[in-house]
Amino acid sequence: MSSKTKNLSVLGSTGSIGVNALNVVRSYPDLFKIRSLSAHSQADLLIEQALEFQPAAVAIGDATQSAKVKAALPGIEILKGRSGLLELASRDDVDVMLNGLVGSAGMEPSICSIKAGVDIALSNKESLVMAGDLINRLLSENKVNLYPVDSEHSAIWQCLVGEDMAHVKRLVVTGSGGPFRTTPKEAFKDITVAQALKHPNWAMGRKITIDSATMMNKGLEVIEAFWLFHLPVEKIDIVIHPQSIIHSMVEMVDGSVKAQLGIPDMKIPIQYALSYPRHLKQDWEQLDLTKIGTLTFEAPDLDKFKCIQLAFDALQEGGSMPVVLNVANEEAVYQFLDGEIPFTAIPELITKAMESHEFLEHPDLDDILALEKWTQAFIKGVKRS
Amino acid sequence: MSSKTKNLSVLGSTGSIGVNALNVVRSYPDLFKIRSLSAHSQADLLIEQALEFQPAAVAIGDATQSAKVKAALPGIEILKGRSGLLELASRDDVDVMLNGLVGSAGMEPSICSIKAGVDIALSNKESLVMAGDLINRLLSENKVNLYPVDSEHSAIWQCLVGEDMAHVKRLVVTGSGGPFRTTPKEAFKDITVAQALKHPNWAMGRKITIDSATMMNKGLEVIEAFWLFHLPVEKIDIVIHPQSIIHSMVEMVDGSVKAQLGIPDMKIPIQYALSYPRHLKQDWEQLDLTKIGTLTFEAPDLDKFKCIQLAFDALQEGGSMPVVLNVANEEAVYQFLDGEIPFTAIPELITKAMESHEFLEHPDLDDILALEKWTQAFIKGVKRS
Repeated sequence: MSSKTKNLSVLGSTGSIGVNALNVVRSYPDLFKIRSLSAHSQADLLIEQALEFQPAAVAIGDATQSAKVKAALPGIEILKGRSGLLELASRDDVDVMLNGLVGSAGMEPSICSIKAGVDIALSNKESLVMAGDLINRLLSENKVNLYPVDSEHSAIWQCLVGEDMAHVKRLVVTGSGGPFRTTPKEAFKDITVAQALKHPNWAMGRKITIDSATMMNKGLEVIEAFWLFHLPVEKIDIVIHPQSIIHSMVEMVDGSVKAQLGIPDMKIPIQYALSYPRHLKQDWEQLDLTKIGTLTFEAPDLDKFKCIQLAFDALQEGGSMPVVLNVANEEAVYQFLDGEIPFTAIPELITKAMESHEFLEHPDLDDILALEKWTQAFIKGVKRS
Repeated sequence: MSSKTKNLSVLGSTGSIGVNALNVVRSYPDLFKIRSLSAHSQADLLIEQALEFQPAAVAIGDATQSAKVKAALPGIEILKGRSGLLELASRDDVDVMLNGLVGSAGMEPSICSIKAGVDIALSNKESLVMAGDLINRLLSENKVNLYPVDSEHSAIWQCLVGEDMAHVKRLVVTGSGGPFRTTPKEAFKDITVAQALKHPNWAMGRKITIDSATMMNKGLEVIEAFWLFHLPVEKIDIVIHPQSIIHSMVEMVDGSVKAQLGIPDMKIPIQYALSYPRHLKQDWEQLDLTKIGTLTFEAPDLDKFKCIQLAFDALQEGGSMPVVLNVANEEAVYQFLDGEIPFTAIPELITKAMESHEFLEHPDLDDILALEKWTQAFIKGVKRS
């Protein structure tokens, strides 16, 4: 192991981001060493990963499976449940924690890690959406770096390498437009779960795939960009680009635009978040624009995709609004996935939650956790009523 | 004048690059001060520019007009003819020399300026095409910086800001394909001067517009990129992109691609070469991809555009080949513009000159100047014969 080896904690190691991260580690064993892994419920895959990478500790979210994990991994410390995850996230024995957790459950581990002084490679966008203000304060107090993993934010970050933020005019977050870009608004009420789960370009988890279908994902990304790059909301635009080749752009004050491009695959941004400031050689499929032939661009339809406008509204109003937006969306998406509500009910439920909650200007961590619980209960209640 | 003011010499100030550079200086009078200007024959415009910017000295290439210039500019030193231009280019009283000269005549002034220890903003691509090896040696000996002005090289340079050249996999130079991209090969022999002068995207001088029509321009840019960025020729590709919005790209070893985009206008790269590492605010037309809608890409047709292959061949063979390529092209283009030869004779004449000249492995400045004369005479002789 060279002196340059980075010790890594991969939270959510059995998810799509985690699995990709372990592929990177596998191809550069001298550069990366896995010290801890966590999974929510996929115990078998977690065990397999731990046997290969030999971490010091693993956490299994589903406590009922901890005995099985313990039996399979002698000599490895096993933590369990939510408290086990938070304990693992609070340790300072790693250089970088990759947060590949899904949804609002990923926020608190980010905060634990920052407080421990550990740099974060952040895929969990909910961390910044819900606690952007708090996280920014903690990052500066603890001198911790946050490296974006989302392809859009990685693109912006890569375009900004070597540039001065004072010279930036605006950020352009691109989005494919999802599976319903050309579907007429009138047909939205009949969208099925199977249809919504068919993303044209990206292979991702179920929750984020639905967020792409409603385009809430793009809205959450605008909020994330706001907290990552510290530009006012008026300077963050969305452009629809169905081929997902240009992953996002930065426009400078002289009109020069820089873009990052690539095949639509999370491998590149995941690796870059771990290898920054280096680019590590990989023989992945190469982008060939002459084969792709055509890239197209259009403005987003905020009337059809109401979730985008809700996200802009939440960011403008600030405070507790993005917390409620995010949690309400999450609950509504799971209800949609469970067949309990129609596709068009997602923005309706979010709007109700945003309007009904007791607004807080500067929520602290306890406020955010309480708001999370309130919003979950509210959406469940609204559904039942 | 602030302590940060850059003193500039603008050679070729009445050409399209020079006029754009003076627009930049006009909008940032605290950042830039014109100390010298040169023009070949447009004495009236030179006088007008000198009256506005009050340089210490101007050079007029056409010596017959020097009396007129002198009379119009009392208190300003007037140099004349080729020797006057070279004298001006050799002075060390400026921070940056913008070389906006056209053709091979621009090479020697670049060398004079580097020897004087003056940084160069280089629009004259012939400097590097003809004397890339020599110029690179002189740059390092004299600790002089070379800032590219060509939109393609500016794009690559901007994409490389903050990046390590060791992480670069390849450069992709984009080109519009010129006015004859879709013209069948059989029709090339009938192409008229008027047709060749109609570039679809860029407003440029006559010589470079014909180079775009033959696509020799792209070949010269590959050679220029080779000397600017020090990558082997196999790592420099050309991609045809008719809309000229992506000005060029860099692919990193991890497959991440960075591109610089903008409206097709030389204003941005000219200003950036002068303002680097800053981007200076300008309210120029903004790039709006949703209005442009579609960007397309295709492979270059080396069979139809023989000049591209000639340039790759010249770069591969090295030594004196690119000198002869460039000068033969220049002479042939002027003959085409004068109606003396058909469009298809341009690559034929270049091929003959490359094959007929006495090859030199490491031409020095005297060799290059002698080769220039030989090639000019050869092309004139071939035409007459």
